[in-house]
Amino acid sequence: MHIRVINPNTTRGMTDTIGKAAASVAAPGTRITATQPASGPVSIESHFDEAISAVGVVEEVLAAERGEDPVDAYVIACFGDPGLLAAREVTRAPVIGIAEAAFHMATLISTRFSVVTTLGRTGIIAEHLLENYGFSHHCRRVRAAEIPVLDLEENPDLAVERLIDECLRAKKEDNIGAIVLGCGGMADLTDQLTDAIGLPIIEGVSSGVKLAEALAGLKLGTSKYGDLAYPRPKPFTGQFEHHSNIKIQ
Amino acid sequence: MHIRVINPNTTRGMTDTIGKAAASVAAPGTRITATQPASGPVSIESHFDEAISAVGVVEEVLAAERGEDPVDAYVIACFGDPGLLAAREVTRAPVIGIAEAAFHMATLISTRFSVVTTLGRTGIIAEHLLENYGFSHHCRRVRAAEIPVLDLEENPDLAVERLIDECLRAKKEDNIGAIVLGCGGMADLTDQLTDAIGLPIIEGVSSGVKLAEALAGLKLGTSKYGDLAYPRPKPFTGQFEHHSNIKIQ
Amino acid sequence: MHIRVINPNTTRGMTDTIGKAAASVAAPGTRITATQPASGPVSIESHFDEAISAVGVVEEVLAAERGEDPVDAYVIACFGDPGLLAAREVTRAPVIGIAEAAFHMATLISTRFSVVTTLGRTGIIAEHLLENYGFSHHCRRVRAAEIPVLDLEENPDLAVERLIDECLRAKKEDNIGAIVLGCGGMADLTDQLTDAIGLPIIEGVSSGVKLAEALAGLKLGTSKYGDLAYPRPKPFTGQFEHHSNIKIQ
Amino acid sequence: MHIRVINPNTTRGMTDTIGKAAASVAAPGTRITATQPASGPVSIESHFDEAISAVGVVEEVLAAERGEDPVDAYVIACFGDPGLLAAREVTRAPVIGIAEAAFHMATLISTRFSVVTTLGRTGIIAEHLLENYGFSHHCRRVRAAEIPVLDLEENPDLAVERLIDECLRAKKEDNIGAIVLGCGGMADLTDQLTDAIGLPIIEGVSSGVKLAEALAGLKLGTSKYGDLAYPRPKPFTGQFEHHSNIKIQ
Amino acid sequence: MHIRVINPNTTRGMTDTIGKAAASVAAPGTRITATQPASGPVSIESHFDEAISAVGVVEEVLAAERGEDPVDAYVIACFGDPGLLAAREVTRAPVIGIAEAAFHMATLISTRFSVVTTLGRTGIIAEHLLENYGFSHHCRRVRAAEIPVLDLEENPDLAVERLIDECLRAKKEDNIGAIVLGCGGMADLTDQLTDAIGLPIIEGVSSGVKLAEALAGLKLGTSKYGDLAYPRPKPFTGQFEHHSNIKIQ
Amino acid sequence: MHIRVINPNTTRGMTDTIGKAAASVAAPGTRITATQPASGPVSIESHFDEAISAVGVVEEVLAAERGEDPVDAYVIACFGDPGLLAAREVTRAPVIGIAEAAFHMATLISTRFSVVTTLGRTGIIAEHLLENYGFSHHCRRVRAAEIPVLDLEENPDLAVERLIDECLRAKKEDNIGAIVLGCGGMADLTDQLTDAIGLPIIEGVSSGVKLAEALAGLKLGTSKYGDLAYPRPKPFTGQFEHHSNIKIQ
Repeated sequence: MHIRVINPNTTRGMTDTIGKAAASVAAPGTRITATQPASGPVSIESHFDEAISAVGVVEEVLAAERGEDPVDAYVIACFGDPGLLAAREVTRAPVIGIAEAAFHMATLISTRFSVVTTLGRTGIIAEHLLENYGFSHHCRRVRAAEIPVLDLEENPDLAVERLIDECLRAKKEDNIGAIVLGCGGMADLTDQLTDAIGLPIIEGVSSGVKLAEALAGLKLGTSKYGDLAYPRPKPFTGQFEHHSNIKIQ
Repeated sequence: MHIRVINPNTTRGMTDTIGKAAASVAAPGTRITATQPASGPVSIESHFDEAISAVGVVEEVLAAERGEDPVDAYVIACFGDPGLLAAREVTRAPVIGIAEAAFHMATLISTRFSVVTTLGRTGIIAEHLLENYGFSHHCRRVRAAEIPVLDLEENPDLAVERLIDECLRAKKEDNIGAIVLGCGGMADLTDQLTDAIGLPIIEGVSSGVKLAEALAGLKLGTSKYGDLAYPRPKPFTGQFEHHSNIKIQ
Repeated sequence: MHIRVINPNTTRGMTDTIGKAAASVAAPGTRITATQPASGPVSIESHFDEAISAVGVVEEVLAAERGEDPVDAYVIACFGDPGLLAAREVTRAPVIGIAEAAFHMATLISTRFSVVTTLGRTGIIAEHLLENYGFSHHCRRVRAAEIPVLDLEENPDLAVERLIDECLRAKKEDNIGAIVLGCGGMADLTDQLTDAIGLPIIEGVSSGVKLAEALAGLKLGTSKYGDLAYPRPKPFTGQFEHHSNIKIQ
Repeated sequence: MHIRVINPNTTRGMTDTIGKAAASVAAPGTRITATQPASGPVSIESHFDEAISAVGVVEEVLAAERGEDPVDAYVIACFGDPGLLAAREVTRAPVIGIAEAAFHMATLISTRFSVVTTLGRTGIIAEHLLENYGFSHHCRRVRAAEIPVLDLEENPDLAVERLIDECLRAKKEDNIGAIVLGCGGMADLTDQLTDAIGLPIIEGVSSGVKLAEALAGLKLGTSKYGDLAYPRPKPFTGQFEHHSNIKIQ
Repeated sequence: MHIRVINPNTTRGMTDTIGKAAASVAAPGTRITATQPASGPVSIESHFDEAISAVGVVEEVLAAERGEDPVDAYVIACFGDPGLLAAREVTRAPVIGIAEAAFHMATLISTRFSVVTTLGRTGIIAEHLLENYGFSHHCRRVRAAEIPVLDLEENPDLAVERLIDECLRAKKEDNIGAIVLGCGGMADLTDQLTDAIGLPIIEGVSSGVKLAEALAGLKLGTSKYGDLAYPRPKPFTGQFEHHSNIKIQ
Repeated sequence: MHIRVINPNTTRGMTDTIGKAAASVAAPGTRITATQPASGPVSIESHFDEAISAVGVVEEVLAAERGEDPVDAYVIACFGDPGLLAAREVTRAPVIGIAEAAFHMATLISTRFSVVTTLGRTGIIAEHLLENYGFSHHCRRVRAAEIPVLDLEENPDLAVERLIDECLRAKKEDNIGAIVLGCGGMADLTDQLTDAIGLPIIEGVSSGVKLAEALAGLKLGTSKYGDLAYPRPKPFTGQFEHHSNIKIQ
């Protein structure tokens, strides 16, 4: 099984981190490849970053669909799940966002959880996703450690310290059974945080890989019946002209 | 007051239709300019189309922000409100999506409404927006006339006939007080449909213009405090490199 | 365009304040007239006050409908939106409550807001309205400055001081982008509070006027199809006998 | 125990029907008195009728509170529960609306129910109440037999025939375990409908009486702590001047 | 009228407490009998305890249905309402859980309430019930006094002290009008707590008895039409073989 | 990895069917063992059956926890997820219900799905689970093919015919992208139905196995922090005396 993990930002170091984290949980028969868009923001910390990155995500899926190395399932490795429904439209394979993956896993091992994300301003993205996915009542609180995303790469010690502090506050105050880490860049911190915090820490990249394996193992792909069917072919203009009369299936 | 109406697709005919519809309801002191992205799909009928068009929308807002003709408010004239929150982040001006505009107006003159959109597959986009905006309980049903968007331009008689049929079914079956038209391409049909159907027909472009005037008239712009503040400047790569170290404010 | 702003309480000073605030945001072609019921409470701070004032509101609308100065839209200028649906039934014109107006505006410029109202006991009215209108998830918290309504008229300095304090607490603690002022009597404080607080302050009277202009500008009136149609004429008794066999349309 | 049943409309025949229905289910130690406002509509079939009748309801409660025949609990016998919260504010006794009473009872003996009311246009009132009380998910459908309220008095045979037809449709189509009758004027029809329909028929007046007995039996009255405390005394003007400086407790 | 109060745990002292509390509020014509399962946990403080006790509850109902002392209504006297829907299936009589009973009563005398239960870990059970019954929005907070259930029997002074402390915190912090006691073992504390706290204290056993009287007084029993009909007879094995080919009606 | 699939009913044939279906999707390193309680109903078609079977489920988990063949994850193979939270309390391993498993999978490959279950009367169980898990908005409709559960074993041809008919109706009428099969006894029908219906058919046993593999692969087990911690040891009486002073961890 070939799972393609797409880092929606363009920071190769983070792609590597994510790819390694994905590989570390993959089943024996699973091959992980990690990619990133050629174009886009180096980190995703706003609706603006997210809108731009969504294009990169979809283009990565399209490239894989047309490539010579067939992909069995995709994981979108940014906690805002950018481009998720668009990506689903252009493939028969399952596509998993890491936020939804982590939320699903969290509800299976606890009755209530909190999210600890990077910046306060991206908390709203997590809140919107919780509402869309149906998990608002299962999440007690969306918290931010106030770490810029790239600090996870560049300033890891301080970042981890702040993360641990915020997770401990969540444990103490939120009446929860688990914590969801709210950033793809935290993919390599699960073990460290689990040890430090003392309750289950759920991370999205690893969760996404296992859900992707699960769906692909069931031969369940994105439904091509109804509103996730392939897009109607049509002209595109300008820098998106290459999507004209899209042929995918 | 200068309101910029952005047609998120790249069909100039539709931009013209939308611009005229916007101008026809504008207050005396309001100047309408209608634009469209240089790049993107000719119509928006899928999550894929929407993801691509969101970039065009945001780039149009950025261009206007940096242009010499200051804009007091923006209207995003596609019923999926593509790029809405991203667009809000990059300006102090208010930004209104036509779906939200129509929903707001509908709740002010009726207790329950239905939506009549183009294609069945885009109904899910309207459903998601209704949930996000809080209007799920006010909308009885999202219906589709099964008209491809561009048929509104290219095959208007048949399109209008189907629209009228679906609106009449909504009136008869849905226990409603108003109908929301679910496509920016229907912007010139409000009067015709109102006459034909016999209950208030709410159209998003015109609704968006009036809400934009309302907000701008109150000197209320997008909050720059909290999660809609300007995005953190950062590097972008590839075809989006021009967004690097964004300076807007 | 003629917008009638109805102050649901019987304090003329407040009617004047509200009328001036309304006029100060009205478009060039808009004429504002402000009235108040002949009968009712001097301020509205309970469900009891609200139930009584609802009659006054509806009677004011009926009087205007039968008067010689045609009204294009009504604004009900008390934050509990008393008599809103009843008022809508007796006119083809749009009728806007200032609470709903402020909530609508707040969702267009921020993702989350808080309400700051007068007395703690009236907070429940705002909570109920938020639920009815669909905005519960957009409002973080309903706060009270614990100011009796008439103190806004009679003891303005202290009232404003408390308001500012509570707004600053909301800004600091609530993770919001905007604040909604929860009382018609605060209509003249918007500018002062905006300056003092540093995020958008949304006030209902001004919001209501602009929404009324918006709807009237679209020729959208209250739906007379379905459950907001004119009431069935019938006998009334006692002090309400004058409503017998109501003829409005 | 003295339960005062208030018919919010001014049709004495309906007051008698309601009073008899109430008495027929009262416990041995319970005395029922049935009253109606001196002023108001002869039936309640619109938001307008409801707003007017709310004043009558509250005045009836106030009159009783000041009267010489102490009341232990109140029932508001119109399916819109007009004036419910206002009435609660002016008494320490429990106050029960017949819509809420019927909904509560329905959820205790079935998992899902439907409502059959009089006119389609009043269905929205039931929908709003279901939302406010938290019972939206327990109610499958609000149906109307399209009977004007007074036809229940004046044209009972046809009215009952239509009611039975609509209840049978609900039984067949709605996947329910019980039916709630949506009008105080149906108070004497419970047995007849139960026999005809073959599933539990829940009627609000009788339900309200038993809930009133239940609360009074527990010595539980309306909370005077918090937002249902007595209204702040204040001046009222005009025809409501008698409420000035209200003294109740 | 014969009301059978079932204490779902097997601690006779608690059955006695509950039975006395029930009898103390029963109407003159009501006879209370209190029982407990022969088998099960001595207290219910977890999902595990609850699952086991549900069997005991249903077996108690079945025993009563087959017994010689006909029962008119049942009350399940544990705040998790264990076995409620199963119990309803096996009888035509109404069956009331004390959690639902208390929630219903609380919404009738206040707009918002809090729950004070025994252990923090059982709070989730109350939260789930609030969601299922539709009362989530009416409850501000589920609190725990951190008292093991049997301490209410064995160490009553300390238990009451902690309860009072937690109730006072709820009164001070939660913006509520009433408090619901979250454990059947608190059935004898209502008066004491009402005096100490100064707002209405709602207790489930007494509430359940009065609701049971109310339903039985209306001749309303569990609907045998639809999903609460008697279970289909079928073989059972092992220790549950006695339920084979169940005949109840 | 050892996954224990527990058939909550006592029909060995169904246990075999479920075990085979589970094994057919298991990953290479996964060993499936399928068991059933010694005591309980032969099929689960009511709340009563479900309450009894929950005990069997928990006892099976306890037996496994104390057994010599360590279990890495449990699947509860009845669509009502009986005993789910209780089972979670008594183990550190993940425990997955097949209803939740199927719902989770359905939301990952479609935006809207319908459920097709056996009997109409058990539809309410699915509805309650959808609400509890947060998936109400993702499910368009819960349908029943009106097949008794054991007919899936004893009368498979007719049962499959009815299932196909109902699934085709769901496909035609419900505006969905996937169908969830609502009974563990349908575990061997997925391929046949997928071929016949033409959209993704999601079955719970297979979904549960893959989610169990996913969680165990992530070393994520049921949270022992908070409300799913091991139950407090305590005395049990009668036929449940063996649970006294439970020691599991």
